[in-house]
Amino acid sequence: MRLKMEKISEFTVRRLSNYYRILIDLEKRGVPTVSSQRLAELGGITSAQVRKDLSYFGNFGTRGLGYSVTELKGAIMQILGLTTQWTMALFGAGSLGHALFYHQGFREDGFFFKHVFDINPDKVGTRWLEVEIENQSSAEDVLRRDPVQIAVIATPPEAAHDIAALVIRAGIKGILNFAPTQLTVPEGVSLRNVNLAVALESLSFFLSM
Amino acid sequence: MRLKMEKISEFTVRRLSNYYRILIDLEKRGVPTVSSQRLAELGGITSAQVRKDLSYFGNFGTRGLGYSVTELKGAIMQILGLTTQWTMALFGAGSLGHALFYHQGFREDGFFFKHVFDINPDKVGTRWLEVEIENQSSAEDVLRRDPVQIAVIATPPEAAHDIAALVIRAGIKGILNFAPTQLTVPEGVSLRNVNLAVALESLSFFLSM
Repeated sequence: MRLKMEKISEFTVRRLSNYYRILIDLEKRGVPTVSSQRLAELGGITSAQVRKDLSYFGNFGTRGLGYSVTELKGAIMQILGLTTQWTMALFGAGSLGHALFYHQGFREDGFFFKHVFDINPDKVGTRWLEVEIENQSSAEDVLRRDPVQIAVIATPPEAAHDIAALVIRAGIKGILNFAPTQLTVPEGVSLRNVNLAVALESLSFFLSM
Repeated sequence: MRLKMEKISEFTVRRLSNYYRILIDLEKRGVPTVSSQRLAELGGITSAQVRKDLSYFGNFGTRGLGYSVTELKGAIMQILGLTTQWTMALFGAGSLGHALFYHQGFREDGFFFKHVFDINPDKVGTRWLEVEIENQSSAEDVLRRDPVQIAVIATPPEAAHDIAALVIRAGIKGILNFAPTQLTVPEGVSLRNVNLAVALESLSFFLSM
C-alpha cells in the first residue's frame, strides 16, 4: 500500500477526513452500509471522485450493497494515522488555545496535548485538566527533554515565527498554525495553516454573487 | 466580470483567500510587486495555477515586473466581497465563540458580530465589547427584527442542527459551522463547515508516511 500512498495529495487527504467524519455520523446513526453515491451527496462531491479516492486503498465495496460503514471507517482511520496516539504541545493559552485544548474531536482522533506554553505569568502554573501551563521561555528545553510530535500555535501572529523556529530546533516535525501569518518551514517539517477567516471569505464571495 | 465569476469554484475562492493573505503580508513588509512565480512559492502551488486563477479577473500583471501588490490585493478584496461590511450572529459563547468574537482577522476583513446567543443563564446579559449576550431561545425573534447576513455556529454538535434550522427560518443565507457535525441546508443557503480536526488528520497522515 505504501507505494500507492505516496501519490496521494493533500486534497485527497482532506476528502478522506471528510468521508471519515461522515462515516462516524452514519455509524452513530446505526447505518450499516453506504454507497459511493450517498457518500458523494453527504460530502458535496461527485460519486466518481469518491470511487477514485477510495480506489487508492483497495476494494472495500460490494456490488449493489456499497461499503460497510464500519470497515471503511476503520480503513480510513488507519490511512490517516488515527489508530496511533499523537502528542502535541500547545503555544498560547488564550481563548483559542482553550477551545483547542478542550476540543473533543482531537481526543477522539487520538491527539493529546502533553504541554501548554504561555508567556503570561498569571497563567503559568495553573492547570488545564492534568496539564500544568508552562512558561514559554522554557519550551525548547522542555520539548527536548519530553518531546511531542506536533506543535499547535495559537498565539498572536507576531509571536508565531519565533515559536515555529523554536519547535523546529527542538526537533518537532509537524506544526499546526492558527496564527494569521504566513510561516515557512524547512524540508522535512510538515506545516498546516488554519486560517479562520478563509471560510468566511468564501461565504462572502458566494453571498455577494 | 459577472459572467466569468459564475464559473469560479470554491477551491478557486480558497486560493484567492490564500493570495489575499500573502499580499497583506507582502504589503506590510513594503514589497511593491510580486511575480506569479513568487506568489506560487509563498502559496505552495504551481505558478501556472496562480496565473490561471488571476486570469479570471482580467490582466493585472506587467511583463517582467509581475503584479502590483496593492492593486492585486485591492482587486481580490473586491472579488471576495471584502470591501463591504458583513454582519454576523454568533451561537455559543464558550471559549471557541470567545476566540472567534475577538479574532482580529474577522474585523479586518469587515466581518462584525452583531449578536451573540447562548443558553447559559450565567452568560446571558453579560457583555463582550459592546455586544450583550442574548438568550438563545429568543434568537429567532431577535434575528427577524434585527437581521444579519451570516450565522456562526460554535456550539456542541448536538445543538447545531436546531440552530441551523432556526437561522434558516429567520432568513439567514450564510452559515459558518464550527460544530463537528454534518449539517445540510436547502438550496439558496451557503454553508461552510470548519472542522478543526481535519488539518490535524492531514498532518498525521503525512507524519505517518
